[in-house]
This record gives sequence, C-alpha cells and structure tokens, in this order.
Amino acid sequence: MPHGRFVTLEGGEGAGKSTQIKRLAERLRAAGFGVVETREPGGAPGAEEIRNLLLGGGVERWDSVTEALLMYAARRDHLVRTVWPALDQGQWVLCDRFEDSTRAYQGAGSGLDRAVIDALGKVARGPFAPDMTLILDLPVAVGRARAAARRGANDRFEQRDDAFHERVRQGFLAIAAAEPKRCAVIDASRPLDEVAAAITQEVERRLGVALP
Amino acid sequence: MPHGRFVTLEGGEGAGKSTQIKRLAERLRAAGFGVVETREPGGAPGAEEIRNLLLGGGVERWDSVTEALLMYAARRDHLVRTVWPALDQGQWVLCDRFEDSTRAYQGAGSGLDRAVIDALGKVARGPFAPDMTLILDLPVAVGRARAAARRGANDRFEQRDDAFHERVRQGFLAIAAAEPKRCAVIDASRPLDEVAAAITQEVERRLGVALP
Ligand SMILES: Nc1ncnc2c1ncn2[C@@H]1O[C@H](COP(=O)(O)OP(=O)(O)OP(=O)(O)O)[C@@H](O)[C@H]1O
Ligand SMILES: Nc1ncnc2c1ncn2[C@@H]1O[C@H](COP(=O)(O)OP(=O)(O)OP(=O)(O)O)[C@@H](O)[C@H]1O
Ligand SMILES: [Mg+2]
Ligand SMILES: [Mg+2]
Repeated sequence: MPHGRFVTLEGGEGAGKSTQIKRLAERLRAAGFGVVETREPGGAPGAEEIRNLLLGGGVERWDSVTEALLMYAARRDHLVRTVWPALDQGQWVLCDRFEDSTRAYQGAGSGLDRAVIDALGKVARGPFAPDMTLILDLPVAVGRARAAARRGANDRFEQRDDAFHERVRQGFLAIAAAEPKRCAVIDASRPLDEVAAAITQEVERRLGVALP
Repeated sequence: MPHGRFVTLEGGEGAGKSTQIKRLAERLRAAGFGVVETREPGGAPGAEEIRNLLLGGGVERWDSVTEALLMYAARRDHLVRTVWPALDQGQWVLCDRFEDSTRAYQGAGSGLDRAVIDALGKVARGPFAPDMTLILDLPVAVGRARAAARRGANDRFEQRDDAFHERVRQGFLAIAAAEPKRCAVIDASRPLDEVAAAITQEVERRLGVALP
C-alpha cells in the first residue's frame, strides 16, 4: 500500500480553509482515495484538550513562548495519534492549519523569535513536512467580514487588530515565496467554486493525481 | 533590593521534598527573608492546568516528546508568572521539583533524547538556572514505602516499576556529579530532623546566609 499524502490548508480567518477542505475531501473520495480531514491545533483527543487551553481566556493568558510550546505539544500529539498512522495506512490527510500558521501568527504576527519556532519544529516533527500546502490568500478586511458574518463570538486570535492580521497575511506569502515547491498560493477572494477549481488543479498538477 | 535566590528540591517519590521545603521555608522566614514555596509541574494557574493534563490518564497517554513539550510549557508559564516576578522582588523561591526532574524522569528514566531536553530548556528558560539544588537521595524501596504509607492512589509516574525509579535515582546522581557547584546531594534516608539540619547547613554554606 502506498504511503498517503499530507496536504495542509493555510490562510487567515475566513479565507475558506474549512469550506475548501470539505470540497477537496469529496473530490478525493470520489476518485477512490481514503481521506482523513483534520485540523490544528487539535485533531486528536489530547491535542484537542491542549487546543482548549490555547484558545480559552484572554489574549495575554500565555506569553508567546508558552503559547508556542503548547502549540507544538498539540502538534506532536496530532502527528503521533492521527496524521502518521493515517499516512502509514495509505490515506490522504487534509489538515486545516499546520506549522505555517505558527510561523505566520506567532512568528510574523506576534514577533516570536524564528529560532524558537525552528527549535520546536525540530523537536516535535523532525524532518517531516507537508507534501503540499495550499495558502488561501485574501485581503484582511474580506476575511474579517466573512468570519464575522459566520459567527458572533471572537476567539483569542480574532481579537487582534488589522495590523496584526496584515502581518500574518504577509507572513504566509513570505513562506510561499521561500518554499514554492511545497506551497501554492490560491487567490481566495474569488467565488467559492472558482477557489475550489483552482485548488483541485494545483493538487492534480503537483501531486500527480487525476480527480474526476 | 537584592535579587532573590532560586533553590530547587529534587529527588524521587517519598524522598521528603515537600516535607523539607516547608522546614526550609520556616527557617528562612525566621531569618527575615521573604519566601515563595512553589512546585513543578504547576506553580501558576495556567501551569497547574497543564499539570492536570500531564498527570491525568494512563502511562501511555502522551508520547515522550509530547510530554516534554507540555512539561516545558508549564515550566515557562511558572517562570514567567511566579518565579521571575518573585525573584525580582527580592524573595527566595523554593521549588519542589524543577528541570532536573525532567532530566531524571523523562531523560534517564524514559530514555528521552538529551538533545530534546536541552533544546526545550533553551527555548523555555534560556540561561536561567537555580542558584542551588538540593538532591534528596534515598533507595527506591524506601521512597516507595514512604509514598505508599502517605496515600492510596498512585499518579502516572508512580505506576512505573522499580527499574525505572532506579534509573531516575542514578539520573539525579549523575546530574549532581556533573554540576557539583549547583547541586548538593543530601542523604534523605536519615530521620527527618537530620535531613533538615543537613539542608540548612548546605544552604548556609553555599549561599552565604545565616539561619538562626
Ligand atoms: N470564496 C468564498 N466566497 C465567499 N464566501 C466564502 C468563500 N469561502 C468561504 N466563504 C464563507 O466565509 C466564511 C468563512 O469560511 P471558512 O469557515 O471556510 O473560513 P476559514 O478559513 O476556515 O476561517 P477560520 O480560520 O476562521 O476557521 C463562511 O461563512 C464561508 O461560507
Ligand atoms: N526523613 C524521613 N524519614 C521518615 N519519613 C519521612 C522522612 N521525610 C519524609 N517522610 C515521610 O515520607 C512521606 C513522603 O514525604 P514527602 O511527601 O515530603 O516526599 P516527597 O519527596 O515530596 O514525595 P513526592 O515526590 O511523592 O511528592 C511523608 O509521609 C513524610 O512524612
Ligand atoms: Mg475554519
Ligand atoms: Mg511532594
């Protein structure tokens, strides 16, 4: 049985990650692949408990280094319990946010030292990385409007201001520029079906599969 | 106001850490020092929540790397919220377990890579270290008997076998041998008052204070 593929979806709030992951999963399943949809932080029972610690409380609840340590604890649990076993069984794993969100939010957004993120990545996942990353890019104001329309309460990240979210956006784009083989930037300001078509096309082209 | 002193008490279960920390705190307070008694994992509200994640559930709940990441998240929160502010106010901070327990339990006991512990220490505390560490040493069987007499339920660590606890004991002794300036080994198999006297003597001698 061939080793599965690990595909991550990244981007700011309201970019359409959760919507598009479902679409992509449907296309892959229709093509006969086994698919696991998951998310970070979370995606395994222990990791979800850590997620609750991370997302609860005020913006200043954890200092940035503590937050990163918790994030990577959740990431490690998610990899060990969910992602690696599924890949070993030959399944595709589609993940709503992964390490690029740490780089963009904690790094570019909050100013956490890149050396901290690199050290924790080495500890938690070693050389493991996504086979492909879809970076859903759109203006901060558009994402914010979509997210606001969707629900009332803001979680801890969404309490941040527009300058923060602009740094996050630029952080994602810088990652894509630095790692063009892994990362595809998708213009997510387009209508939902167009975004879905662009994602399917990139997955077919980059991972060498046909999705009927 | 002078910077406070950070003193850690280390050793296996039932060695007498919690008992002796109270004794030492009394002596220091009688000598006019401000003293904060704290413990790891925990010692701050967020860190205590992480402690609950760490100590609950079965032995295999977290893989060893996830456990270390959680441990260091709790350590960072404890340092930022409790230890560093108290030291800045000139207080003595007495801590029931600190990083040597990670080295002894996760490292020597469970075989976690030393490079992981070193990397996480660098992230979570930088160059900060205890001014002095008291390593309460006693045979595993004696510690186990004391701990069993004290309470019924075993926590996650105490479910491990004697070979594990022997590796932990040797781990502590190896740390003390490698860092003799920081670490004092105390024979904790002696009666409580003798152990307390030995601790007072080491604190007076090594940290240059008089404890009436
Ligand atoms: N291309 C699109 N055009 C218009 N609306 C969209 C588009 N994609 C998603 N939406 C809508 O925007 C809202 C946010 O989408 P979604 O929840 O998928 O984003 P997300 O990236 O997962 O956000 P979050 O990071 O907050 O979880 C939803 O109401 C969704 O229906
Ligand atoms: N020197 C001693 N001689 C005999 N009994 C002792 C001595 N020191 C402590 N005890 C008893 O042993 C038990 C364990 O002591 P204590 O709780 O202080 O150990 P500990 O190192 O904090 O253990 P743990 O790691 O499980 O928290 C207690 O009932 C305590 O009264
Ligand atoms: Mg979403
Ligand atoms: Mg104790």
